[in-house]
Amino acid sequence: MLKNIPWQEKPHDSNDVLWRYSSNPIINRNAIPQSNSIFNSAVVPFKDGYAGVFRCDNKAVQMNIFAGFSKDGIHWDLAHDPIEFLPGNTEMIDSDYKYDPRVVFIEDRYWITWCNGYHGPTIGIGYTFDFKEFFQCENAFLPFNRNGVLFPEKINGKYAMLSRPSDNGHTAFGDIYISYSPDMKYWGEHRLVMKVVPFEHSAWQSTKIGAGPIPILTDEGWLLFYHGVINTCNGFRYSVGAALLEREAPEKVKFRSQPYLLAPTSPYEMMGDVPNVVFPCAALCSLEEDRLALYYGAADTTTALAFGKPSEIIEFLKNNSL
Amino acid sequence: MLKNIPWQEKPHDSNDVLWRYSSNPIINRNAIPQSNSIFNSAVVPFKDGYAGVFRCDNKAVQMNIFAGFSKDGIHWDLAHDPIEFLPGNTEMIDSDYKYDPRVVFIEDRYWITWCNGYHGPTIGIGYTFDFKEFFQCENAFLPFNRNGVLFPEKINGKYAMLSRPSDNGHTAFGDIYISYSPDMKYWGEHRLVMKVVPFEHSAWQSTKIGAGPIPILTDEGWLLFYHGVINTCNGFRYSVGAALLEREAPEKVKFRSQPYLLAPTSPYEMMGDVPNVVFPCAALCSLEEDRLALYYGAADTTTALAFGKPSEIIEFLKNNSL
Amino acid sequence: MLKNIPWQEKPHDSNDVLWRYSSNPIINRNAIPQSNSIFNSAVVPFKDGYAGVFRCDNKAVQMNIFAGFSKDGIHWDLAHDPIEFLPGNTEMIDSDYKYDPRVVFIEDRYWITWCNGYHGPTIGIGYTFDFKEFFQCENAFLPFNRNGVLFPEKINGKYAMLSRPSDNGHTAFGDIYISYSPDMKYWGEHRLVMKVVPFEHSAWQSTKIGAGPIPILTDEGWLLFYHGVINTCNGFRYSVGAALLEREAPEKVKFRSQPYLLAPTSPYEMMGDVPNVVFPCAALCSLEEDRLALYYGAADTTTALAFGKPSEIIEFLKNNSL
Amino acid sequence: MLKNIPWQEKPHDSNDVLWRYSSNPIINRNAIPQSNSIFNSAVVPFKDGYAGVFRCDNKAVQMNIFAGFSKDGIHWDLAHDPIEFLPGNTEMIDSDYKYDPRVVFIEDRYWITWCNGYHGPTIGIGYTFDFKEFFQCENAFLPFNRNGVLFPEKINGKYAMLSRPSDNGHTAFGDIYISYSPDMKYWGEHRLVMKVVPFEHSAWQSTKIGAGPIPILTDEGWLLFYHGVINTCNGFRYSVGAALLEREAPEKVKFRSQPYLLAPTSPYEMMGDVPNVVFPCAALCSLEEDRLALYYGAADTTTALAFGKPSEIIEFLKNNSL
Amino acid sequence: MLKNIPWQEKPHDSNDVLWRYSSNPIINRNAIPQSNSIFNSAVVPFKDGYAGVFRCDNKAVQMNIFAGFSKDGIHWDLAHDPIEFLPGNTEMIDSDYKYDPRVVFIEDRYWITWCNGYHGPTIGIGYTFDFKEFFQCENAFLPFNRNGVLFPEKINGKYAMLSRPSDNGHTAFGDIYISYSPDMKYWGEHRLVMKVVPFEHSAWQSTKIGAGPIPILTDEGWLLFYHGVINTCNGFRYSVGAALLEREAPEKVKFRSQPYLLAPTSPYEMMGDVPNVVFPCAALCSLEEDRLALYYGAADTTTALAFGKPSEIIEFLKNNSL
Amino acid sequence: MLKNIPWQEKPHDSNDVLWRYSSNPIINRNAIPQSNSIFNSAVVPFKDGYAGVFRCDNKAVQMNIFAGFSKDGIHWDLAHDPIEFLPGNTEMIDSDYKYDPRVVFIEDRYWITWCNGYHGPTIGIGYTFDFKEFFQCENAFLPFNRNGVLFPEKINGKYAMLSRPSDNGHTAFGDIYISYSPDMKYWGEHRLVMKVVPFEHSAWQSTKIGAGPIPILTDEGWLLFYHGVINTCNGFRYSVGAALLEREAPEKVKFRSQPYLLAPTSPYEMMGDVPNVVFPCAALCSLEEDRLALYYGAADTTTALAFGKPSEIIEFLKNNSL
Repeated sequence: MLKNIPWQEKPHDSNDVLWRYSSNPIINRNAIPQSNSIFNSAVVPFKDGYAGVFRCDNKAVQMNIFAGFSKDGIHWDLAHDPIEFLPGNTEMIDSDYKYDPRVVFIEDRYWITWCNGYHGPTIGIGYTFDFKEFFQCENAFLPFNRNGVLFPEKINGKYAMLSRPSDNGHTAFGDIYISYSPDMKYWGEHRLVMKVVPFEHSAWQSTKIGAGPIPILTDEGWLLFYHGVINTCNGFRYSVGAALLEREAPEKVKFRSQPYLLAPTSPYEMMGDVPNVVFPCAALCSLEEDRLALYYGAADTTTALAFGKPSEIIEFLKNNSL
Repeated sequence: MLKNIPWQEKPHDSNDVLWRYSSNPIINRNAIPQSNSIFNSAVVPFKDGYAGVFRCDNKAVQMNIFAGFSKDGIHWDLAHDPIEFLPGNTEMIDSDYKYDPRVVFIEDRYWITWCNGYHGPTIGIGYTFDFKEFFQCENAFLPFNRNGVLFPEKINGKYAMLSRPSDNGHTAFGDIYISYSPDMKYWGEHRLVMKVVPFEHSAWQSTKIGAGPIPILTDEGWLLFYHGVINTCNGFRYSVGAALLEREAPEKVKFRSQPYLLAPTSPYEMMGDVPNVVFPCAALCSLEEDRLALYYGAADTTTALAFGKPSEIIEFLKNNSL
Repeated sequence: MLKNIPWQEKPHDSNDVLWRYSSNPIINRNAIPQSNSIFNSAVVPFKDGYAGVFRCDNKAVQMNIFAGFSKDGIHWDLAHDPIEFLPGNTEMIDSDYKYDPRVVFIEDRYWITWCNGYHGPTIGIGYTFDFKEFFQCENAFLPFNRNGVLFPEKINGKYAMLSRPSDNGHTAFGDIYISYSPDMKYWGEHRLVMKVVPFEHSAWQSTKIGAGPIPILTDEGWLLFYHGVINTCNGFRYSVGAALLEREAPEKVKFRSQPYLLAPTSPYEMMGDVPNVVFPCAALCSLEEDRLALYYGAADTTTALAFGKPSEIIEFLKNNSL
Repeated sequence: MLKNIPWQEKPHDSNDVLWRYSSNPIINRNAIPQSNSIFNSAVVPFKDGYAGVFRCDNKAVQMNIFAGFSKDGIHWDLAHDPIEFLPGNTEMIDSDYKYDPRVVFIEDRYWITWCNGYHGPTIGIGYTFDFKEFFQCENAFLPFNRNGVLFPEKINGKYAMLSRPSDNGHTAFGDIYISYSPDMKYWGEHRLVMKVVPFEHSAWQSTKIGAGPIPILTDEGWLLFYHGVINTCNGFRYSVGAALLEREAPEKVKFRSQPYLLAPTSPYEMMGDVPNVVFPCAALCSLEEDRLALYYGAADTTTALAFGKPSEIIEFLKNNSL
Repeated sequence: MLKNIPWQEKPHDSNDVLWRYSSNPIINRNAIPQSNSIFNSAVVPFKDGYAGVFRCDNKAVQMNIFAGFSKDGIHWDLAHDPIEFLPGNTEMIDSDYKYDPRVVFIEDRYWITWCNGYHGPTIGIGYTFDFKEFFQCENAFLPFNRNGVLFPEKINGKYAMLSRPSDNGHTAFGDIYISYSPDMKYWGEHRLVMKVVPFEHSAWQSTKIGAGPIPILTDEGWLLFYHGVINTCNGFRYSVGAALLEREAPEKVKFRSQPYLLAPTSPYEMMGDVPNVVFPCAALCSLEEDRLALYYGAADTTTALAFGKPSEIIEFLKNNSL
Repeated sequence: MLKNIPWQEKPHDSNDVLWRYSSNPIINRNAIPQSNSIFNSAVVPFKDGYAGVFRCDNKAVQMNIFAGFSKDGIHWDLAHDPIEFLPGNTEMIDSDYKYDPRVVFIEDRYWITWCNGYHGPTIGIGYTFDFKEFFQCENAFLPFNRNGVLFPEKINGKYAMLSRPSDNGHTAFGDIYISYSPDMKYWGEHRLVMKVVPFEHSAWQSTKIGAGPIPILTDEGWLLFYHGVINTCNGFRYSVGAALLEREAPEKVKFRSQPYLLAPTSPYEMMGDVPNVVFPCAALCSLEEDRLALYYGAADTTTALAFGKPSEIIEFLKNNSL
């Protein structure tokens, strides 16, 4: 049972279900030597603290993923060199780039998924037992794909992964699908989970959507945070929404937020390498304490933290569903 | 005769003909519950103070228009629910969205125009006598159109409206036309008023232009503020210009500003949901006191205020005309 | 009662409801001196034969409309100079170009509509009593619009016109709307009539649609032929469909063809200035004799003719409706 | 051992390794009632003759696949209704459209793959034992994908499929990948096989490429015919190339044609619904007799046939390889 | 004095100033082994007959230029291998591709210009004395440029070249410029000669224009044939126009054709690798006999010939000038 | 020998080879009356101080260049009117606009190059002896070109200029070429110097690159600062890199930075008329003192200053080269 996750009470003047950490961003763009930016990163409880896998673009603006450790989930000690993978269930571990990792513990190990450059973006899979030695597996899918997110347990005996089929550029479309695998090597049973929404119903999620943190199992089903994008005349704006998926058949959506839960309104979210982006990739959740800490990339530049109460969020979803 | 409009003297170090209110923005993005942004809004004198119609996008980023009241034109009390319209001269009051309202008193009532979603953006028309009960009329035009702006009195016995034919996306072109109607229901006699300007002559208005506040009748003709757009490599930048149109034949332009009068240079104009936008939708003007208060949307996020002296502005137009 | 219209029986091996004239095209691209192409043209019964208004692009590829006369509707005598208009209900008869005319007799005169170049394409209106003297009226709409088609009688006391709002280029979208006018000068009460159809249901009409000939009043309502466009990887392909609209409320569609009735399959339709275009602009119809002659432009190059039986077409629509 | 396949000797004036059947096309666009076009289709030896699965777009331009039978491989008897599938290894047999089928016999049944519309194009899989009853399986991949082509036998114990990841429109890119499956349900081990070629080296295959018929096992490895596309200023032009892949590791290309083997030069290939397309989907091959019959779609309109000698083709590949 | 050039009298039913050779095309796409197409080529009088440089794309669709000889200018004997160049005024004779050659005799040798692939298209220059040995010089310009055409004599003591600055794709713009050189190595004094024409004035030349054959010196100045392009919804259509430039200052245009002189209307011009293209690259002219033979590429596939009388053409230009 | 250039020591917490001036920006957007922005400007030592040529866009957003003087290189006195040029080596001194100047002393005078509007952007050339009287020469190249940068001395007896061929819009490509001239009038011997870099190797310079300040001669060759651009989903981001070119053959690159040396991370670089731009146009360098002052435009709005040690920069290039 996860406890003592990072936490700050809701400000008195807020009526939002997600609120920002007052000392955001928690990781700055230059937190390690030669980094251009550190964002869209994933954390998990590990031993008596936390471990994580961090997207760090260096000053050649090459994208890679780095390990990190923290006692409190807020102050992080990041490796200065990217993760080097050993062969896992394959010898083919080519990678032109790696970005936007997610991490989850299933059964006996920590699984990592990321956007992997193999003749275009697709979903890379790896695992570690200790965040020291890492093993890379077969890519889950053909290119082009992004935002591959595993469920934290098998569903009907199979691994399950959300993803967002893409193209090879700044994809201007994108829906969330689910796929299943008996063995983390071969994938199939692909189903649509959620589509973008017509502009007039919920414009912030009308251009593309993609799964964020590992889904959280609640009494109401899987709580999924996701990003949604609106295409303004001056570019994409990324916000955060949430949905509840059926436990046994996550391709069925029970509730889905019509309003966003978090959108770029702070200077560090509106100004940076890519302005107007909040992009969630990880969450720590203590249902017992009714606390959730959401990690998100800000403006493709820094890593920030928001908080919320799972019970409030679920209630909000029920009352504000599409 | 309008008096005591919002006012602040020109700063000593300014040589501009429009200057910002020192406490801008006057309405913040979260001024009402569930608002994502409040901007591109219209105000008129009403009773002993002011009334207005405000564009407020909610947190689903649905666009709608809301009534508001103010004693001083600066501090506003906005409704928390969008305007609901009753049938006016039609039963067909469908609307997928409403945005960018303008308001004007003609004869016996307050007319409102806005960008109305009817299978794409077109010009919606409505009226109210009291800002409590609102009536919706036939759309003025076929889609696709935006920035419909009525003249405050009939011209040659007919209602007159400026508008900007568009397409169904982030229109990359746009000129200002005028149309006439005997009855606010059927429109015709469409004439071009002003086109965009070649890049090398006045780049800020080289991509598209659109009418702003209700034109102001002066001794020199109709004073029209309008927005102009330049297409930079990082998106559209919206600035404010002005023109003087002939009183009896407003399709004839007497003077038109080569330089802009206001451009995005303040942080709240350069940073927000759509960076680098100043978008004027309303003006209060006391020719007697030689004062003008211009309301404009900032960065598609907040509502701001600028001031100027009509005599100076007209003189500026004469000296800086295309 | 119209009789003796151009006619040829259906070939024995055909099971289509429209079939081609065996001597197509009836007007070649070089039928008059200096013509590049003659197509998308309109004919009406006139005196003891037929008159028409023809789109003829000259060898500068300037688009204009020309008068023509015929005894039999097949062999045409075309003017060598374009129509010159006198002022009708307006002095503003500017026109950068004219194309795709339609002609209809209403009450006391022949009304002509066309795509009129006034700072972009919009709907021009004119009339003639004798096809010798022509008068031009106010444009019906603001730019950008194409395919303005009048109904042959007033509906609920008002003139009615179909049109297709467009943009200022090779518009990649387009639906059919209806507008009403008390006086052929001011237009309003705009309503959507028909939209494009999702690709998987009827791909030939999935990109844009536009009204063709003047609607024909039948016992089943207005019989409307229209063109539909599919966007292939090698450009647009234009086919012909049909619909039945309610007599008193033509914005209501009773039946609409899921299959096309005619598509480009003949060499003169597949090869020319714009390959793969059949574009209907006029029809002669004798309900008494159950005969219909449809005039259409082929490959934006020549004018061709197809035949059908109205009763068969209506039956087809009922059995093959979307 | 396949014998007596359709055949015609090479014309005396030809020095090409593929030559056309003199009575092309073998199936016309209107070969069955209500068909708009019949092309991009697949045939296999069946009983004492041939069976096939044919792409037929109807006159609503809906894409579907139809069964057909032939004694000689040239004259075909096509079903008038599309194939209806029963559930195979899944209950989820949704399909918005089906096109570009391939057919291959493996082990005990005929497997069919096609481009299947499931929220965009992906690879559908089905099977039949008798071309009367058909069963549909799980889609192989997430959208967007096209040109899924199975190998005729398992490779290293697994089913193998070539495919071309795409986007959801007229994809302007495309390379050939291979994927493996233990069970025709879950797929993985995705590898790049061949990429497009830089314009200056072989322009006809510089925009996109895709596998054509089922690969043919020869002493030199797998003989794969594929289509290549050049993007001209007037659209895509599709030609036919060939390659030899390693038997045990087909992702390794031994030889690949720098010149095309067949390109659109006949009127029925240059004129039609999509001009300038030759698109191979099936081949009959008798290595013993050194004869090959290649079925290809012409101009997305009709089905045509070309012939070649496998020995000559392989020699050509060795001498003209990239 | 050039005599006995290819010639055929104007057909009786023609009123055009250019008419086609009745046996067009004179060179077919497969005139040499391994050719995909032969078009956009240049000829000059040579010894007692003619020599030429021909664009021939091979079946890998690699573009290169080939020498050829003819007795009568109609029947050509083409080399089977592309021209190999020796270093001329430079050692840098890199070339990714060569296409659209022009040839002219100046002073003591035959100069060849072509579109040369050096990190994109630019203007290559070479020369020969005998069409056996060829020498390549410095490229005239930086990329991106096409249609470099030399004047046949020095102007004010300097070599002069027309060209059309482009981009690196299917350039959708293009005007004709002139540049001067003292030495065929360094170029400067760049001046605009002719721009595209607004759509409504002469649509066939509204998208881009480019010089064609070597300008012909007449009493009225330089007679220049050029191609003009209109952008239809189904691609580019290339036609032929002409202009008269001032002898001493060719950047000054005396007359320029508003109508085209030749446009694609024959099947071999409307159907081929790029439909709807006539593209002139060379002319033989006998002013004494008042005969002109114009060589042009047809549909980017074959080489064709048209004839005209210089006196008629010049008269036409005077009477039909923009 | 240049001494006493602007200077500030590296901050203690920095490990970068370029660091910002602590009082940036040194010239604000409104430094002269009617200026919209002042940026992308060039300075040189002049007499006992410095002179410069500044890009100043006025409030009509017309781009022009202005002279300026400074004692210390930091505080500048700018002319209020743009430079007016007299004819230099040509009478043709048309210019629709001028921007992004560079300045260099060669032999006896100060040469200025800039982006000059002559039917599109090309490279303008001028000179001055005193920054009071200016002379304009022939444009170096045909349109479209930008970022023309002269070497400070002749190379092999010829003037040498770097440039970046472009298109006529927001060019999405761009490599650096070198051209030579015997006389500053005619240019040739064009060679590629550096291309953009594949995304995965150095994304910040993967879209386009262009030369910055006048190259600096060092013992290791020419030290060239340049800008590189990445195309994010929200627009272009401009960073600064550096390279060392061979002294006698500058088209040969000895070293080139894989990481950038400076990227937009300060508010005045991330917010402005074009967010996320640092654009270097000039440098003052004292190799003796090992000091370099780099002038750059920030966000296309203001002028800023960075410092570095040439020895460190060269060492960095050697250790971090592509």
